[in-house]
Amino acid sequence: MGVPSLLLSRPDLDFLLHDWLQVEKLTARPRFAAHDRDTFAAVLDLAHDVATEHFAPHRKISDSREPEFDGERVHLPDEVGAALRVLADTGMIGATMDEAVGGMQLPHTVAQACFLWLHAANVGSAAYPFLSVANANLLLAHGSPEQIDTWVRPIVEGRFMGTMCLSEPQAGSSLSDVTTRAEPQPDGTYRLTGTKMWISGGDHELSENIVHLVLARVPGSPPGVKGISLFVVPRFLVAPDGSIGERNDVVLAGLNHKMGYRGTVNTLLNFGEGRHTPGGRAGAVGYLVGEQNRGLAQMFHMMNEARVGVGAGATALGYAGYLHALDYARSRPQGRPVAAKDPAAPQVPIIAHADVKRMLLASKSYVEGALALVLYCARLLDEEQTADDPADRERAHLLLEMLTPVAKSWPAQWCLAANDLAIQVHGGYGYTREYDVEQLYRDNRLNAIHEGTHGIQAIDLLGRKAVMQGGAGLALLAETIAATTGRAARADGLAAEFAGALDAAVARIVAVTATLWAVGDLEVTLANASVYLEAVGHVVVGWLWLEQLLAVGDRTDDLAQGKRAAARFFLRHELPRTGPWLDLLVSADRTTVEMRDAWF
Amino acid sequence: MGVPSLLLSRPDLDFLLHDWLQVEKLTARPRFAAHDRDTFAAVLDLAHDVATEHFAPHRKISDSREPEFDGERVHLPDEVGAALRVLADTGMIGATMDEAVGGMQLPHTVAQACFLWLHAANVGSAAYPFLSVANANLLLAHGSPEQIDTWVRPIVEGRFMGTMCLSEPQAGSSLSDVTTRAEPQPDGTYRLTGTKMWISGGDHELSENIVHLVLARVPGSPPGVKGISLFVVPRFLVAPDGSIGERNDVVLAGLNHKMGYRGTVNTLLNFGEGRHTPGGRAGAVGYLVGEQNRGLAQMFHMMNEARVGVGAGATALGYAGYLHALDYARSRPQGRPVAAKDPAAPQVPIIAHADVKRMLLASKSYVEGALALVLYCARLLDEEQTADDPADRERAHLLLEMLTPVAKSWPAQWCLAANDLAIQVHGGYGYTREYDVEQLYRDNRLNAIHEGTHGIQAIDLLGRKAVMQGGAGLALLAETIAATTGRAARADGLAAEFAGALDAAVARIVAVTATLWAVGDLEVTLANASVYLEAVGHVVVGWLWLEQLLAVGDRTDDLAQGKRAAARFFLRHELPRTGPWLDLLVSADRTTVEMRDAWF
Repeated sequence: MGVPSLLLSRPDLDFLLHDWLQVEKLTARPRFAAHDRDTFAAVLDLAHDVATEHFAPHRKISDSREPEFDGERVHLPDEVGAALRVLADTGMIGATMDEAVGGMQLPHTVAQACFLWLHAANVGSAAYPFLSVANANLLLAHGSPEQIDTWVRPIVEGRFMGTMCLSEPQAGSSLSDVTTRAEPQPDGTYRLTGTKMWISGGDHELSENIVHLVLARVPGSPPGVKGISLFVVPRFLVAPDGSIGERNDVVLAGLNHKMGYRGTVNTLLNFGEGRHTPGGRAGAVGYLVGEQNRGLAQMFHMMNEARVGVGAGATALGYAGYLHALDYARSRPQGRPVAAKDPAAPQVPIIAHADVKRMLLASKSYVEGALALVLYCARLLDEEQTADDPADRERAHLLLEMLTPVAKSWPAQWCLAANDLAIQVHGGYGYTREYDVEQLYRDNRLNAIHEGTHGIQAIDLLGRKAVMQGGAGLALLAETIAATTGRAARADGLAAEFAGALDAAVARIVAVTATLWAVGDLEVTLANASVYLEAVGHVVVGWLWLEQLLAVGDRTDDLAQGKRAAARFFLRHELPRTGPWLDLLVSADRTTVEMRDAWF
Repeated sequence: MGVPSLLLSRPDLDFLLHDWLQVEKLTARPRFAAHDRDTFAAVLDLAHDVATEHFAPHRKISDSREPEFDGERVHLPDEVGAALRVLADTGMIGATMDEAVGGMQLPHTVAQACFLWLHAANVGSAAYPFLSVANANLLLAHGSPEQIDTWVRPIVEGRFMGTMCLSEPQAGSSLSDVTTRAEPQPDGTYRLTGTKMWISGGDHELSENIVHLVLARVPGSPPGVKGISLFVVPRFLVAPDGSIGERNDVVLAGLNHKMGYRGTVNTLLNFGEGRHTPGGRAGAVGYLVGEQNRGLAQMFHMMNEARVGVGAGATALGYAGYLHALDYARSRPQGRPVAAKDPAAPQVPIIAHADVKRMLLASKSYVEGALALVLYCARLLDEEQTADDPADRERAHLLLEMLTPVAKSWPAQWCLAANDLAIQVHGGYGYTREYDVEQLYRDNRLNAIHEGTHGIQAIDLLGRKAVMQGGAGLALLAETIAATTGRAARADGLAAEFAGALDAAVARIVAVTATLWAVGDLEVTLANASVYLEAVGHVVVGWLWLEQLLAVGDRTDDLAQGKRAAARFFLRHELPRTGPWLDLLVSADRTTVEMRDAWF
C-alpha cells in the first residue's frame, strides 16, 4: 500500500472494527451473507488506495483553485472529476445500498470506515459523492419505485449527483421559515419558485445531471414545519427512457467563498426565476416525494445519518491532522531535553519534549475517541436495520437517537481541537500553506456549523432526546455505560479507576437532567444546553475509551500500549473537565438568560 | 467619529484607562508633564480615525492579494503604503519615545490603547510599524548615539522600517542554535553570512531602507546562548550624511504563505550570499550593537514588551471579532424563543437566543478581560520606568516579569476562542470570506506561535518566573491579588463571592507550584507546564474582572451592568475550569512523560 498516507491508521481501524465491534459477526445476517472478513478487507484496501492515489493528491489544488463561474459554467480543477470517476467505478457510492439498485450491501460500519479514508484525503471532493449518497438514501426511503429507477440508479453509477436544498436566506437554523413555493400542475408535477442557500454541489459539470432534493411549500399548506414538502428537482429533465432532456429552471445565482472546504462548489440557487421555461412554462419542474407536508419529517428521518456523517468527516480531518503532526514531531529536530546543560549537544526531535507529547496524546485521545464514536454509531445503524430481534432494533434506534447530537458535535469540536494542536506542533511551519495542517483546520471548521450548529444539537439533546419517551434514551445510555463499567470494575487498576469516575459522571448527568427540567422555565432549562452537550460528549467518549481499554485486554504490543496511554490521558486530563460543567448546570445558572442586549 | 467601527469600544477603553487605571495621574510625573487628559483623548481619537479610515478599509484587500515577488521586487497593494504614510505623519511611531528623538513621550498605557486600534483594524499592515517600533526601542536601549541617529530617527519619521532577524531554519524555539556568522573587519564593522527565517517585513518597497536587527555569532564565541551577538544590518548602507548608499548583501530567498496575517510580507532572507558586494567585498555589512555575546540578553530585555505586544494584537483581533458578532446577532432575524408555539410569529434577532447570548457573553469576558490584562501590563511598564520610588519600579518590574507569559498566551488562546465564537455566531455566513470574522480568526491564529509558542511561555512561567528570586514574583502576584480580594470581601455579594473563589484559587496555585518543584525531576515538574500557564491565566484574568467589578462600583449605567454580567459569567462559567487543571497539576501526572514514541 505504498508509503504511509498520514490520513488514518489502518491498524486502529482494524482494531476497532474487528477486535472491538466484531463486524465479522454481521456476516451471519442474511443482508450481509455475501461478505466475509476478506471482502471487508478488500473494500477497505480499495478505499485507502482511492483516497491516497486519487483524492489526497489534489487536496491543495482544490483549496488554492476555487470553483469559478464564468457566467455560463462552473469550472473545477480536472483532478476533481477524474477522482470522482475512479470512485464511481469502484461501486462505493452504493456501498450500503441494496444489490437490487446496484449497491454492495455492506454494513454501515464497514462503509463508514471506507468513507473516512475519502474524508481524510479530501473533504472538498468527497462532498460530491457523500451528498449524492445522502440524496439517494432519502429517495430509497421515501421515493416511488419510478423515482428510484430514474434518479437513484444513475447516482449509484456515478452518472448523476445529488444535493440537499434546505436553507434559504431567511431560513437557516429555522427551517420552518422556508418559503420556496411549489405550485401543483394538472399533470401531477409541481412548479417551484424560490431561492436556496448554501447548496453544496449545486452547479457543476461533473455529472450528466444534478438531482436536487428541495424543501418547499404547496400553497394552502399549514404554516411552520407541518406545511413543508419534499421535491425532486433535477437540473435537466429526464425522458421516460432515461435520456437527458430539457434544462430545468434551476439557475446558479452566486457562489459562496469559504474559509475551507473550498473544493466543494457552494451555491445560491434560484428556482423558477424564468431563465429556462421547461415545457414552455414558468417555474422549475419538481416531483413530490412521498406525501405532501411530510418533507421535514422525511428529511429528519435521514438526519441521524447525515449528522453522524458530519461527525465522521470531522473525525477524519482531525485524524489526518494528528498523523501529520506526529510525523512532523518525529522528524523535526529542535531544542534539547529541559534538564540538558550542554548547548553543543545535538538537538532532539520535538516528540521528545513533554509538551509536544502532551499535545499529541491529547490529539490521539480526541481523534481515536471520535473514531470509536462514529463507528459505534454506524454499528448501531446496522443493528437498527438488521438485528434479528425487533427489541434489539428498537434499542439500537433509541441509543442512536440519543448519541446522534453527540456524534455530530463532539468530533466537530474536539477533532478541530486536534487540528489546532497539529498547527501548534508544527510551530510557524504549521501556520503556512506550504504545509497541510492549516487547510485541515480550515476544512474542519465548517463541521460545527452545517447540518445543525453546535447550539442546535445541544437543544436537540437536552430539549428532546434526553427526555423523549419519559427519559428512556438517557436511561438506556446510562444502562449501556453501566454494562461497560461493570466489566471494568472487575479488571485492572486503570480500568477500575476509570469505571468509578464514569459511574459518578453518568449519575451526575442523570441528576442534572432532572434538575434542569424541574426548573419550569424552558429558557432557563435550555440556556446552557451547549454545556450539557459538551459534558455528555466527554462522558460518552470517556466510556468509549474505557471500551477500548477493555478491548485491548492484557495485550502488550505498541497499539495496545498506545490505547492504554490515551485512555489514561482521557481519564486524567479530559474527563475531569466535566466537573465544573456539571456544577454550572446543576446551579441552573441564569447569567446568560438575564443578560440584556444593551449591556453588551 | 462616524459609524461604529466594530474594532474596539472607546467607552470600554476610557473606563479602563481612566476609571480603573487612572492614567491621568501619570501626568504628574516629569516625563509626561506635557500631557493631560485632553492630549490623551486627542491621540486616541487620532488612532481611531487612522485605524478606521486608513487601515480597516484594506484589511480584506491585503488578505486576498498577498505580497508577490517578481524576482526583483516585492509588490504589495498600494493601500498599504498609503496607510503607513498617514500613520507616520501622525508621529505615532514614536508614541512612547523621547522627544529628543522625535517621540511623543506618551505613557505606554495610552500608546498601547492607540496601537490596539491599528491591530484591530488591520494586523497585516500594522505589523510594519510595530516591528519598526520594537527595532527602534532595542536600538534606543542598547545602540550607540550614532546608531540611534542613523537608524532610529528615520524609523520614527517613517522613512525607514525595521525587522527582527532571530530564527533560522534549524533555530526557531531553540535560539541557542543560531549559526549565522559575523566576521569582524579591520574597520570595526562585521560581515554576516547566513539564512534567517520567518522575517516579517524582510523585503519590500514601503520605505527608503530596511533596518534588520540580526542575531549572529562572531567566530570563536562560546556555544549556545552565550555566544550570540546583535547586529544592525541595513538593506542599503547609509553615508555619514544620512543619504542612502550602496545595496547591502541581504537577499530575499523566498516568501512564506500563511493561513492569515497575509498582508505582512514574511520572508526567508540570505545574508552574504554574494548577490551584492558592498565595498567590493563579500558578506552583508553589519554593525555590532552594544557588547559582543550579549545579543540574546539584549533581545530578551525587549522581549517583555514584544510578548505583551503579541497579547495586545490577539486582544484587538478578538475584540473586533466580538463586536462583529454582536452587530450580526442584533441584526440577523432567525428562529423564535424556545417556548414560542406560533410558527407564524415573526422571527427574533438571534441575540434573543440564550445560546447566542452565552457565546457573546463568553467572548465579552475574554476580550474585555484580555484588554484589561494588556493595559495593566502597559501600566506596569510605565510604573517600572517612571515611578518616583525605586522600590515601586522594582515591584512593577517583578510583577511584569511574572505576568508577561500570561499576557502573551492568554489573549492568544482566549481571544482566538472569541474569534472562533464570532464565526459560530454568524453561522454559515461567518465561515465565508464575504464576512470579516473568518479572517480575524486566521489572523489571530499566529499569536500562539510567534514570539515564543504557548509551550515556551509555559516553561518560562513555571520553570523560571514562578521560582525566580526564591519565588518572589509569585508571592508578589499573590499579594497583589489579595489586595484586590481584600477590598472585594467588604463589597457586595458578587464581589465577595468572587473574592472567595479567587483567594482559594491563588492558594492552590502557590501550593501546586511548591508541589511541582518538590518532585525533583525537572521533566515531570514541567510536563504539564501548559496547564499551569492556563490555570494561572484564568486566575489572573479572574482577578482583573474582580478589579473591573470594583471599578464600576454601584454605577447602574449599561457599561457598568455589562461589566457586572461579564464578571459574573467569568466567575461562574470560567474560573471553575481551573479546578480540574489544578487537580491534575497537583497529582504531578506522568502520563505524558511516560508516553513512548512507538505507542503513538
